[in-house]
Amino acid sequence: MANDSLMANAIRALAMDAVQQANSGHPGAPMGMADIAVALWHRHLRHNPKNPQWFDRDRFVLSNGHASMLVYALLHLTGYALPVGELKGFRQLHSKTPGHPEVDVTPGVETTTGPLGQGITNAVGMALAEKLLAAEFNREGHAIVDHHTYVFLGDGCLMEGISHEACALAGAWKLNKLVAVYDDNGISIDGQVTPWFIDDTPARFKAYGWNVIGPVDGHDVEAVSRAIESAKHSAEKPTLIVAKTHIGKGSPNRANTAKAHGEPLGAEEIALTRTALAWEHTPFDLPKGVYDEWDARAKGDALESEWDKRFAAYRAKYPELAAEFLRRMKGELPKNFTQVAVDAAIAAHAKAETVASRKASQIALEAFTAALPELLGGSADLTGSNLTNTRSTPPLRFDQSGDVVMAEGRIGRHVNYGVREFGMAAIMNGVALHGGFIPYGGTFLTFSDYSRNAIRMAALMKRRVVHVFTHDSIGLGEDGPTHQSVEHAASLRLIPQLDVWRPCDTAETVVAWTVALQTNANRPTALLLSRQNLPYAPKAGLDEISRGAYVLAEPSEVGAGRAQAVIIATGSEVQLALKAQEQLAQQGIAVRVVSMPSTTTFDRQDRAYKESVLPNGVPRVAVEAGVSDFWWKYGCAAVVGIDTFGESAPANVLFKHFGFTPENVAETVRAVLQRG
Amino acid sequence: MANDSLMANAIRALAMDAVQQANSGHPGAPMGMADIAVALWHRHLRHNPKNPQWFDRDRFVLSNGHASMLVYALLHLTGYALPVGELKGFRQLHSKTPGHPEVDVTPGVETTTGPLGQGITNAVGMALAEKLLAAEFNREGHAIVDHHTYVFLGDGCLMEGISHEACALAGAWKLNKLVAVYDDNGISIDGQVTPWFIDDTPARFKAYGWNVIGPVDGHDVEAVSRAIESAKHSAEKPTLIVAKTHIGKGSPNRANTAKAHGEPLGAEEIALTRTALAWEHTPFDLPKGVYDEWDARAKGDALESEWDKRFAAYRAKYPELAAEFLRRMKGELPKNFTQVAVDAAIAAHAKAETVASRKASQIALEAFTAALPELLGGSADLTGSNLTNTRSTPPLRFDQSGDVVMAEGRIGRHVNYGVREFGMAAIMNGVALHGGFIPYGGTFLTFSDYSRNAIRMAALMKRRVVHVFTHDSIGLGEDGPTHQSVEHAASLRLIPQLDVWRPCDTAETVVAWTVALQTNANRPTALLLSRQNLPYAPKAGLDEISRGAYVLAEPSEVGAGRAQAVIIATGSEVQLALKAQEQLAQQGIAVRVVSMPSTTTFDRQDRAYKESVLPNGVPRVAVEAGVSDFWWKYGCAAVVGIDTFGESAPANVLFKHFGFTPENVAETVRAVLQRG
Repeated sequence: MANDSLMANAIRALAMDAVQQANSGHPGAPMGMADIAVALWHRHLRHNPKNPQWFDRDRFVLSNGHASMLVYALLHLTGYALPVGELKGFRQLHSKTPGHPEVDVTPGVETTTGPLGQGITNAVGMALAEKLLAAEFNREGHAIVDHHTYVFLGDGCLMEGISHEACALAGAWKLNKLVAVYDDNGISIDGQVTPWFIDDTPARFKAYGWNVIGPVDGHDVEAVSRAIESAKHSAEKPTLIVAKTHIGKGSPNRANTAKAHGEPLGAEEIALTRTALAWEHTPFDLPKGVYDEWDARAKGDALESEWDKRFAAYRAKYPELAAEFLRRMKGELPKNFTQVAVDAAIAAHAKAETVASRKASQIALEAFTAALPELLGGSADLTGSNLTNTRSTPPLRFDQSGDVVMAEGRIGRHVNYGVREFGMAAIMNGVALHGGFIPYGGTFLTFSDYSRNAIRMAALMKRRVVHVFTHDSIGLGEDGPTHQSVEHAASLRLIPQLDVWRPCDTAETVVAWTVALQTNANRPTALLLSRQNLPYAPKAGLDEISRGAYVLAEPSEVGAGRAQAVIIATGSEVQLALKAQEQLAQQGIAVRVVSMPSTTTFDRQDRAYKESVLPNGVPRVAVEAGVSDFWWKYGCAAVVGIDTFGESAPANVLFKHFGFTPENVAETVRAVLQRG
Repeated sequence: MANDSLMANAIRALAMDAVQQANSGHPGAPMGMADIAVALWHRHLRHNPKNPQWFDRDRFVLSNGHASMLVYALLHLTGYALPVGELKGFRQLHSKTPGHPEVDVTPGVETTTGPLGQGITNAVGMALAEKLLAAEFNREGHAIVDHHTYVFLGDGCLMEGISHEACALAGAWKLNKLVAVYDDNGISIDGQVTPWFIDDTPARFKAYGWNVIGPVDGHDVEAVSRAIESAKHSAEKPTLIVAKTHIGKGSPNRANTAKAHGEPLGAEEIALTRTALAWEHTPFDLPKGVYDEWDARAKGDALESEWDKRFAAYRAKYPELAAEFLRRMKGELPKNFTQVAVDAAIAAHAKAETVASRKASQIALEAFTAALPELLGGSADLTGSNLTNTRSTPPLRFDQSGDVVMAEGRIGRHVNYGVREFGMAAIMNGVALHGGFIPYGGTFLTFSDYSRNAIRMAALMKRRVVHVFTHDSIGLGEDGPTHQSVEHAASLRLIPQLDVWRPCDTAETVVAWTVALQTNANRPTALLLSRQNLPYAPKAGLDEISRGAYVLAEPSEVGAGRAQAVIIATGSEVQLALKAQEQLAQQGIAVRVVSMPSTTTFDRQDRAYKESVLPNGVPRVAVEAGVSDFWWKYGCAAVVGIDTFGESAPANVLFKHFGFTPENVAETVRAVLQRG
């Protein structure tokens, strides 16, 4: 017991001292959760500080990411490669201890948190991945996938809407190995929460089908530990442990106040806190005894070795399954994937079908989901519209006892996320972070607004997540302006590290999917797809599609002369460009048509290629059924776009109404050429 | 009873026939909710079809907006100016019956719905506005503000995260005059909801502090009516009525299936449905008896007349209060506002303080909240960071019995929304739609991602809502890339009809607020404000700030010659532009500095003004701590921007790290001039 309090106070001291040194940060939550952290990290968490990538480790997510010093302290104390120098560099440029935890920056950090509510949602995705991998790979007597996902979260996460989406799904999916500990301190930034947060949180979580334990005293390590032990035995339900705590515990004057939350305690209060905690050590100087207590390396090594042995036995008995498991966890595509992709592209080119690009996506997915068992699809209750399902991806279902329902020995691979776009996106991030699956999910493009910050987080974390956004413009027709994307393509392209594709036909759609899965192993991709049918755009070859933009049609028929203008188009507007090209040719005006399905990809090409597609000195006109502002970056002389909201009417009426006609495109080109 | 069923079947017939005629739409929900609609609209709703703007009408929100034919049928049947011809033009261009209900398009539609979960949230805002106006304006024996807010919603709305945020707040705020009817049909687009939606919804809502009634049989008009009657007597709690229904009721083969949801029934099934309902009338041809039953005009006139009398008595006794009430409901600013705004701008200019623009915003708000009792502020749990509160806006609080706590006879005018950005934004939309208040609310700019679709909805609905987005760039420093906006300024500017301001100092901030409140009566405004201090930018005058961009500093000191280049800057980067101008002047290079706090406003100026600010032929360089893509629209030769995510470090370190220095700006200008 004495050790418990010493161990917890080590966290408190490191947190308050690092925040003080940075003159920036959040001491309140780490100090308040220190005892909970002892209970979980010292008594239960199965991890190996010497190998943060050990596959079967328990996952730990700090959903209240502002408490970053809590996890940095824990990683440092338990023996991860996070020396005290990094704690002293808390929140400084290029330290391993940024203001909020960032995956791939700090060894042992599983996900980037800070935007509230998304950490718990990532954790739901991790727990889902664990459960599905276990169902797929474990064999009688060979439980090679067998770990828990633990989450710490606070009032903020619970107020956020996404917590509703994620936790409702965790209940529906019976994710019994998900354990969340709620830091119930009754304080948020604006103060005592009662005027704005009266939820009966235990009742709320029971309504989701969770196992709820507590309230327990969050400063009683023994009590919290017992709660975790009990949670680990939950057979069918995820568990919420409600732990009553005091924010900033240890600080005589700041504890239990909002002031403890987000600013340094100050030298004077730190001195008082040291006295109150009977903590006699200077900042960042911990006694060896504390380190010895916390050191988890030997135990972690043993855990991993024991797993290695189990895996060796598994491999001996199921060599192919073991190899497949290792491939999946590495995120490597099967060797035949390139051929599958080439075949799919060639088939699309040969068939030259007129279909909606959402349908083209489903055709591509038929091939890719058959070849890639790691593809885990889904939709936010628009399966039949997004066309994200295939013959290889039956719906994912769980039985009454919480087990994954298997169909012909396989798990369901299409997730019905319900009407929960943000939850879907952040769960997909969690699945990708866990490993073993490549998640993709669909909704209407306009509702990318709902999930936008999770898309951004995937980009920041560089994770392979594919968003299937259908009904991508006024072309969706009668549903009207609430559902019609106008600014969305452009605004998604502004998110750093996100690839955005808006293909014009079946071949471009296959290539977009190929890039998303193969090239973009370290970035998310958004595919913007039409509701309406699109004709196949005849093309000389397929090789350059993957460069994001290419010369689709030269003005050969009006002579060998150089094009007088270039029309750049994307998606459903490529056909308009081709028709305008024809009309202009009849008037003796030679125009090149560039299809630019992915501006983000094109922007990464070398200068020579870019100039070969968009030659200097040749005026450019862009055509896209979206806001025009974006297109000026390509030095366009004119843009045929839409800078107002849409209207409710049939698609063909709308395209005409908003000027998306070959005539208007041709006229725009002529006007550009006339003004010189 | 016979009449009830006749009345309900009239809705069913109109819904299935209009959807069929449009060959597009959602018959399932209107047919399933027809009996509920009879209960509410025929027996309880206090409204006047002849005056949809009658102030004290009950508000009705169709949160499941895809059921638009339900409300169109009700408006038509009860006598609104929505003739049958409009129903026949369902979902056609410029009809009054767009695919989803749109406020200001259809008389009687209170808010634009379709994006799920936002309707119920708007309704929470309406009910809040009602409660606050009642507290502010009602006097003993003179209840001039006294109406209910009714909502219909479905499974989709309840799955969305925003429903959690909104309904938790409705409970905390004790909005007892909010009554929501849940169309519990167990079906969503992907089918029977049980695999993805197992919430115990009554328990969930009880956990929020709601009064929950039912389940009742949603096809028993009498039972639903009794539930509504009971809900109207709830003294302290909002009410959820759970009504079990059959989606597509009446259709022999489609009822109770997802297929009823979003497509026409088809001629054959419509014929079968007519038979099943014993509905013998041809499409759109209703017997006079049905119209007579539904006609609500006489009753509505009587209700309004009765209220007029009450208001006359109120005006007789409280003439000033009555005049103020009428002004508030018209959304007109007080006559002295222009003077208040001018004084505030002049004071800022005279003081020329160095403060963060979020602080400048608070200074402006001190003046404006004192002058405008209709300003209803708030923050998503970041009050001390957003600085949205003032001396005139004490926190809004409710007592145990649900009454608004008054401080010195006034209501609280700063809303603690908790950590609920999306909820806040959509509640503000509801407040603005209700009238009587101008809502504003704060969070960090990056978390505009969370609320983005509600911002878009405010723009689509043309409502005056002000978003205070602080911590607007890498300038927030140590919190790191999860919190640092990079793409947000640019991406907000892409939303049609939204005004975006990023002021550089106190004077520009005052003007931004003035435009948001006065000029932008029919559009929302986003104010992007710095965390860090910004020096006052010396300027010749203040008049042109409201034009969105203006010449801040001419290169007078290097002679009378024309500027060789223009530097365009916004917000915190204006000071860099001014310093670069100085450095360049020392090198004999004459540069004009244009401050462009609002690109959206500048874009609306006439051509002559635009050219006077950005002269043709003078190369332009833009500087903004955000993605560069946006700036090419102004024909820039170079952009100093940031096209990656930020980092965690002190702000001054980051500005240097990412090239936001006067030296780099000056160097960029030189490079542009050298390449000619």
